[in-house]
Amino acid sequence: MTATSERTGTIVLGENQYGKAEVRLMKVDRDQPRHRITELSVTSQLRGDFTEAHTVGDQGRVVPTDTQKNTVFAFAKDGISSPEEFAIRLSEHFTSSFDWVAGGRWEVKEYTWEHIPSSLTNNVTDGEHDHAFVKGGTETRTALVQRYGDEVFVLAGLEDLRVLKSTGSEFHGFPKDRFTTLQETTDRILATSVTARWRYTTTDIDFNVVYDDVRRVLLESFADLHSLALQQTLFHMGKAALEAHPEIAEIRFSMPNLHHFLVDFTPFGMENPNEVFYIADRPYGKIEAEVRREGVAAEPRAWNTVPGFC
Amino acid sequence: MTATSERTGTIVLGENQYGKAEVRLMKVDRDQPRHRITELSVTSQLRGDFTEAHTVGDQGRVVPTDTQKNTVFAFAKDGISSPEEFAIRLSEHFTSSFDWVAGGRWEVKEYTWEHIPSSLTNNVTDGEHDHAFVKGGTETRTALVQRYGDEVFVLAGLEDLRVLKSTGSEFHGFPKDRFTTLQETTDRILATSVTARWRYTTTDIDFNVVYDDVRRVLLESFADLHSLALQQTLFHMGKAALEAHPEIAEIRFSMPNLHHFLVDFTPFGMENPNEVFYIADRPYGKIEAEVRREGVAAEPRAWNTVPGFC
Amino acid sequence: MTATSERTGTIVLGENQYGKAEVRLMKVDRDQPRHRITELSVTSQLRGDFTEAHTVGDQGRVVPTDTQKNTVFAFAKDGISSPEEFAIRLSEHFTSSFDWVAGGRWEVKEYTWEHIPSSLTNNVTDGEHDHAFVKGGTETRTALVQRYGDEVFVLAGLEDLRVLKSTGSEFHGFPKDRFTTLQETTDRILATSVTARWRYTTTDIDFNVVYDDVRRVLLESFADLHSLALQQTLFHMGKAALEAHPEIAEIRFSMPNLHHFLVDFTPFGMENPNEVFYIADRPYGKIEAEVRREGVAAEPRAWNTVPGFC
Amino acid sequence: MTATSERTGTIVLGENQYGKAEVRLMKVDRDQPRHRITELSVTSQLRGDFTEAHTVGDQGRVVPTDTQKNTVFAFAKDGISSPEEFAIRLSEHFTSSFDWVAGGRWEVKEYTWEHIPSSLTNNVTDGEHDHAFVKGGTETRTALVQRYGDEVFVLAGLEDLRVLKSTGSEFHGFPKDRFTTLQETTDRILATSVTARWRYTTTDIDFNVVYDDVRRVLLESFADLHSLALQQTLFHMGKAALEAHPEIAEIRFSMPNLHHFLVDFTPFGMENPNEVFYIADRPYGKIEAEVRREGVAAEPRAWNTVPGFC
Repeated sequence: MTATSERTGTIVLGENQYGKAEVRLMKVDRDQPRHRITELSVTSQLRGDFTEAHTVGDQGRVVPTDTQKNTVFAFAKDGISSPEEFAIRLSEHFTSSFDWVAGGRWEVKEYTWEHIPSSLTNNVTDGEHDHAFVKGGTETRTALVQRYGDEVFVLAGLEDLRVLKSTGSEFHGFPKDRFTTLQETTDRILATSVTARWRYTTTDIDFNVVYDDVRRVLLESFADLHSLALQQTLFHMGKAALEAHPEIAEIRFSMPNLHHFLVDFTPFGMENPNEVFYIADRPYGKIEAEVRREGVAAEPRAWNTVPGFC
Repeated sequence: MTATSERTGTIVLGENQYGKAEVRLMKVDRDQPRHRITELSVTSQLRGDFTEAHTVGDQGRVVPTDTQKNTVFAFAKDGISSPEEFAIRLSEHFTSSFDWVAGGRWEVKEYTWEHIPSSLTNNVTDGEHDHAFVKGGTETRTALVQRYGDEVFVLAGLEDLRVLKSTGSEFHGFPKDRFTTLQETTDRILATSVTARWRYTTTDIDFNVVYDDVRRVLLESFADLHSLALQQTLFHMGKAALEAHPEIAEIRFSMPNLHHFLVDFTPFGMENPNEVFYIADRPYGKIEAEVRREGVAAEPRAWNTVPGFC
Repeated sequence: MTATSERTGTIVLGENQYGKAEVRLMKVDRDQPRHRITELSVTSQLRGDFTEAHTVGDQGRVVPTDTQKNTVFAFAKDGISSPEEFAIRLSEHFTSSFDWVAGGRWEVKEYTWEHIPSSLTNNVTDGEHDHAFVKGGTETRTALVQRYGDEVFVLAGLEDLRVLKSTGSEFHGFPKDRFTTLQETTDRILATSVTARWRYTTTDIDFNVVYDDVRRVLLESFADLHSLALQQTLFHMGKAALEAHPEIAEIRFSMPNLHHFLVDFTPFGMENPNEVFYIADRPYGKIEAEVRREGVAAEPRAWNTVPGFC
Repeated sequence: MTATSERTGTIVLGENQYGKAEVRLMKVDRDQPRHRITELSVTSQLRGDFTEAHTVGDQGRVVPTDTQKNTVFAFAKDGISSPEEFAIRLSEHFTSSFDWVAGGRWEVKEYTWEHIPSSLTNNVTDGEHDHAFVKGGTETRTALVQRYGDEVFVLAGLEDLRVLKSTGSEFHGFPKDRFTTLQETTDRILATSVTARWRYTTTDIDFNVVYDDVRRVLLESFADLHSLALQQTLFHMGKAALEAHPEIAEIRFSMPNLHHFLVDFTPFGMENPNEVFYIADRPYGKIEAEVRREGVAAEPRAWNTVPGFC
């Protein structure tokens, strides 16, 4: 051992976190005939001094991941006002219940469900069935809470919001080198799948109302900009979100450029005036950036362990 | 060789088909300021006498899969009225253009896009942006055309229509044996992802109108039945579709029972009156059946090579 | 109701089956210090007269899918000699235990695990750790048993066996039309992911030994043929399997042509003598065929509900 | 605009990067009869001053992602000695060719292929076919190079190395609270899928030799530890890698605890002495940690934008 240490130096534990990932649950609010359902996928990870669990296998401080799962289910019983508040509540519970849990990371994903329209009258309210649902939307809402002692950071977000413009997008004026073969264009399809996260500077807001409005702003601003590049569209979307919501300090995007290539009809003796496009899978462009409000302090701890830009 | 043949018998080619799978395309109808977009994934497979391609590698009759792909793109230029009609047109082209192509299989999937709502006025019609879109719906529309000479069979369908009832579902009265541990219940969550295909007895219909109505009927009938089993729900949905549409001969379903298990709160000293459910991935129930109109001739060739029940 | 029936005819239940899908289990044989592990995914589906479950929701005959799952686990306790025999045993149990279960479909997938090599001596046999394993192989072994009363059909198979030839593959001599743009080639990459199923005419064989040998024959015959088309390679592989194993009546393949396109280096002033290829995702060629032994009776019931060709 | 700014502050671009993701290529070395093939997926992202592309859509500095893709293909022509060196070469090219490209991120994934064994003699060397291959291994090798001007950081790694111990794993001594239901155990299955990245302090090594040895050390150390917790196994594996390779400064792991639950056979009147386990999908444990060499300076820029722990 000593010999090894002399050669390799002392080897120690660095940063670490552990917990239960993707606890999937359905909460049914059934106190009214018209039910409300909430589908979540919850990941809970704890941080603190867990050195002895790693170095000698002592579990004396390891709150089992199974217990974290049980706690998620038990807390859901009280109702889920928003994914952000649910994550904050979990963060408070674990840090206050176990001295050595100094903080952690709680991520909640929420999926959209809609009441099924019905032309009948039984169990139906305003033309919608009270307790029958169809999955809706294509994006997933995300909430990420990171806690360090008493400090709490809240990142709201969404994943896989698929949007496309069939015109109103150009790309030209780029530098050329030996390996450049791309043609300039003043009319192309612009398509992406938006992943975004934004940081709130307060928890004193209606998270559901703000989420819905940010989603609306992102869609509208994607639509209205005549785009010279996906980068410009990204910045325009972020700027619009920040202008609409002073409670947001910064927003980060990861936006693939999902290529739709115009099919060359020349060999067939036909023309293709931007009508038929081949949809490629890979490779794809990958545009990532942060749009932020100048003068607001950066909070790297809010973004610690966040994958890439989002 | 002779020795081998004596021992093993003559080895010959059986049924076969070949083509290009998942040709993904976007067609933009841009003759009006308000664009219409159609996203398809097309699979084209030819049948006929291709024995020599297999036995001696002679390609003299093999219309390349690349050519099939090009044809899909070229035909999209003329417009896509419905996935069914697009598949029929492809089937006519290949069987009429190449003597030895006796038939084949053409499958078309269509994905839903919606105009993005906009509060602005530029490029906006009735509150929706003219050429900016957001992906909608969760299900995929499918059309499968199988052709044998002049005979054409059309199967319409949908995949992954996710529906759920938060009450109004029971399960009891089943046989018990040594391995039975399931508890009977008079109130559970019923959740499934509907895959369905139905066969039309005519091509003289408005495929889009009928598709939309079958989808509506499937949703409504899923919602309105107080269910004693997923099998009963399946039959009720199929019966409703056939009653609403005499042009449908039969409908087949594959419907997983996506288990939502009530979490046991007893160890926590809490009650769980059907409020919090754990969503399992695997295993899942798998319910498959055909609902058909008595007296209509079966057409096994329509369903040949269709995966399982759908 | 009568009115509806007059208009639409009587609507009845057609073919149906139900059960539990993807029961994933690990069986550990630990009677020796050197453990043996078997990972399976089992799907069990029953057929018979289940009409009343569908039409009126009567579960009196519905052996719960949960019970089917429990039975799979319980039977695993006795050991799993091969996926084929495990499926046959399940088929015997359900048809003999419940009068109204006339048959069904049992599919078993098996995944490969290998002992981890070890240079130490503790818990190590012949340089391999006794109870530590690493997942191996890329293909999945499949077994499908279909039972109709006392008649049992056994299909063995494999999925996703990824193979590639870096030369020794040509493609030319194909018919041209207006939409043909593909260039002929005498040297290309041939790549596919083999899915195959073959039918045994007997159950009196060592399923594991035969499986291993069929896999070996498929790999060797893929390798040794100078290929003029993927169709020729497919037939050559099937013929080799049938010649090596008289107990196989027929073999079916679904083999995508996974395109590797030569990158055009001309714009860069460089040559690319078959060295750098772009790997495409979609679309891909899809080649499907059966190779069979002449004179052996076809058994469509063996292939009933098998997805497509495999 | 001024009004908005007064209310919301100036909104500016923060960190950003862009490029082409998942350029998939196959390089064939065919100067010898026995071919060597290398399959890569390459992601190239540039950093620097791209503000005007975002704020006004000026592409004057935007090296197109298409050009980045072409460069990847062109460079592959010269041969790929290792994924790490290929990424370093790309990083040098882009930062030296374009003044305003200050750095970036290049990630390379490599997949394993093996020669197909052959009992024939044609095109065969030492019992293996010269140019026919079968995909091997289950893990993916990863290399990530981040460059900031002249400073280059190299992270090697692997993804999805699936390992399992059928005994020699315990879990007990953990704290209990109201929500604890997990039973203690002295014998369970331990299964995980290792994702790891480690940082080299030098580029003057044989990357392939070291990678192979780190993989070997991770497997052996996983196998040899009698484990009291996955955390302990993780630390043991990291320590072993650092002790074996002084050129590694730190190693990070993300290791799911892939639960294998013992099936309760009590209701069936049977015993289950750790023989039959149900394999669950979700939720799963998620254990993440860094193991590092004390006294070696941390390099947060090496890990910037790395998803989570790995």
